[in-house]
Amino acid sequence: MTNSGGVGRVESKRARFETPLSLRCGATLPAYELVYETYGTLNAAKSNAILVCHALSGHHHVAGHYADAPDNIGWWDNIIGPGRPLDTDRFFIVGVNNLGGCHGSTGPSSTNPASGKPWGADFPLVAVIDWVHAQARLADLLGIESWAAVVGGSLGGMQALRWAITYPQRVRHSLVIAAAPRLSAQNIAFNDVARQAILSDPDFHGGHYYEHGTAPKRGLRLARMLGHITYLSDDQMGEKFGRELRNGAFSFGYGVEFEIESYLRYQGDKFAGYFDANTYLLMTKALDYFDPAREDAGDLRATMGRTRAGFLVVSFTTDWRFSPARSKEIVHALLANGRDVSYAEIDLNSGHDSFLMADPHYHGIIAAYLRNVKI
Amino acid sequence: MTNSGGVGRVESKRARFETPLSLRCGATLPAYELVYETYGTLNAAKSNAILVCHALSGHHHVAGHYADAPDNIGWWDNIIGPGRPLDTDRFFIVGVNNLGGCHGSTGPSSTNPASGKPWGADFPLVAVIDWVHAQARLADLLGIESWAAVVGGSLGGMQALRWAITYPQRVRHSLVIAAAPRLSAQNIAFNDVARQAILSDPDFHGGHYYEHGTAPKRGLRLARMLGHITYLSDDQMGEKFGRELRNGAFSFGYGVEFEIESYLRYQGDKFAGYFDANTYLLMTKALDYFDPAREDAGDLRATMGRTRAGFLVVSFTTDWRFSPARSKEIVHALLANGRDVSYAEIDLNSGHDSFLMADPHYHGIIAAYLRNVKI
Repeated sequence: MTNSGGVGRVESKRARFETPLSLRCGATLPAYELVYETYGTLNAAKSNAILVCHALSGHHHVAGHYADAPDNIGWWDNIIGPGRPLDTDRFFIVGVNNLGGCHGSTGPSSTNPASGKPWGADFPLVAVIDWVHAQARLADLLGIESWAAVVGGSLGGMQALRWAITYPQRVRHSLVIAAAPRLSAQNIAFNDVARQAILSDPDFHGGHYYEHGTAPKRGLRLARMLGHITYLSDDQMGEKFGRELRNGAFSFGYGVEFEIESYLRYQGDKFAGYFDANTYLLMTKALDYFDPAREDAGDLRATMGRTRAGFLVVSFTTDWRFSPARSKEIVHALLANGRDVSYAEIDLNSGHDSFLMADPHYHGIIAAYLRNVKI
Repeated sequence: MTNSGGVGRVESKRARFETPLSLRCGATLPAYELVYETYGTLNAAKSNAILVCHALSGHHHVAGHYADAPDNIGWWDNIIGPGRPLDTDRFFIVGVNNLGGCHGSTGPSSTNPASGKPWGADFPLVAVIDWVHAQARLADLLGIESWAAVVGGSLGGMQALRWAITYPQRVRHSLVIAAAPRLSAQNIAFNDVARQAILSDPDFHGGHYYEHGTAPKRGLRLARMLGHITYLSDDQMGEKFGRELRNGAFSFGYGVEFEIESYLRYQGDKFAGYFDANTYLLMTKALDYFDPAREDAGDLRATMGRTRAGFLVVSFTTDWRFSPARSKEIVHALLANGRDVSYAEIDLNSGHDSFLMADPHYHGIIAAYLRNVKI
């Protein structure tokens, strides 16, 4: 994998915040650290900043590569760089690892100052609104009064939406991609099976597995395998794997037989090898809790009335995790308030994961929208 | 739960077959037993018999109740009885627990004559065609030369289809409900996650957990929770559970918060308490392997050309496990051969589980079709 034409070498930075942060769950985090990266140059007016929010398993390393790890390319590198849709010749891009993450920001594997041990499952459950508040402090630190745009896909799109609701004066544009205004019962159901896989793993030890020198890898592997099914479309799985057999014939055993099994197990094993299970649990709960209209007795129209930003809402035809119908709920609630909203439904066969694809039509829409953003 | 108007008290029977059975996987079962039930009366010509095939977690107790267990009602009681669609005033109905099952027929928990211990995971993997061969021997025992109809939903529908292909002279009508001619990559993927949950449970002990006095209940519970998501429709989950909270407010912990979580965990726990994990593994593999057109290089039309039965194919609009499009593949392959086939797509919101519902329109179609079956 190369990175030609992208942002090139990048470095991650670390910010420490000593002002306690009150969380949605009622707990207070006395202090916390966020790791982040920036690409491009902040202009003198500090008016050209774009915040990219990550999804469930993402982090602050959004684009480029590290000097000592040239193959470690950022997770959304294809959209960021000179001349790319998130154009670093024009914009200053910020990526941040969210609170509760496992890539350097304060999270369950960090030391709990009260005990001197890792937080583990005692780390407070963090909601999307908490991430937004924490990101706002990072904006303060960087001197960014208002974002030219907040951008995200999936759970990242929910943060873009939450920003526009919670800090209407600080977001000029919100790009909400492959998201939903709240999870459906089916969405929650998938999350709960994933959580139960982790929670019931004997190596979980009530979330304090760090002290036991173990990790609930069996459960995390299952969670990731299941997640992958919901990220891909049935069509794409059919085209990519179909009923292809690993060895051309049935083996009549419980080893890998179909290529799709090989793919899923590989993905599960890989993920379980580097991701922290407590972070996975926490991220799925943030998804479940996300429901900004709850503050308005379920009236999404009222909630959207609090926004001031311009919106680009993007959905994908084969996304069955957050289908186009879910994006349209957001669009309709915005239109009912007379907000400036563009909507694109992109015909891509990669399901929910389409938002990460370098499709020219999809990227063209993002690029065109951002070209019209005043800085 | 009462059973008024149904078949009333029933008794299960047991048949032993001493002739070795060659299985699709290459193994031979030296002898085996099948438990079965019958409802109604076999006529003198033995021409009024209907075989009901069960799905993944089903068994031979299809209708009625036992004298000593009045609440143990058969799993498809609503469709069987005097005046019901599978009318016991006219038909003789046979239900059988399939080979590899855990409700009395020979399966993984039976004693392996070679070792004197339970078969466990050494029980040979049984394919749909093996079930059909075993059922054919039961038909021989009962003196049934040809079935008036073979009926089944889901994996049961696959058996009804397999009967018509493998024993064209012995099936006059095949009722294939909520089924598919083969699993998709996504279907296999869900099965594999379920299997991995069981196989990676430390209590699985390579499938020989009976000897260890354990059972992989954690894994089986997860498998069932996941299965339930695929049996229900997104719509139905939304209507039934939505985002209802168990206690009216977020608890910010990993206990039950949403009603859907409570439902799934309850279903998972209940199932793990009585079902055998090795049987679950085996049944999901039978699903994966089912692909009769494989014998004709994938040409389903050629495969369907071997059938002689009349067909009723039924699908449900909200079934996303085996969608109507999958049923239509069967219908089109039959029509291409000029077979006598009726097709009904029923608008019910219960997803894949719709086939078990007592919907008047659905039951009316089954009843009307069977009224025209000559006996």
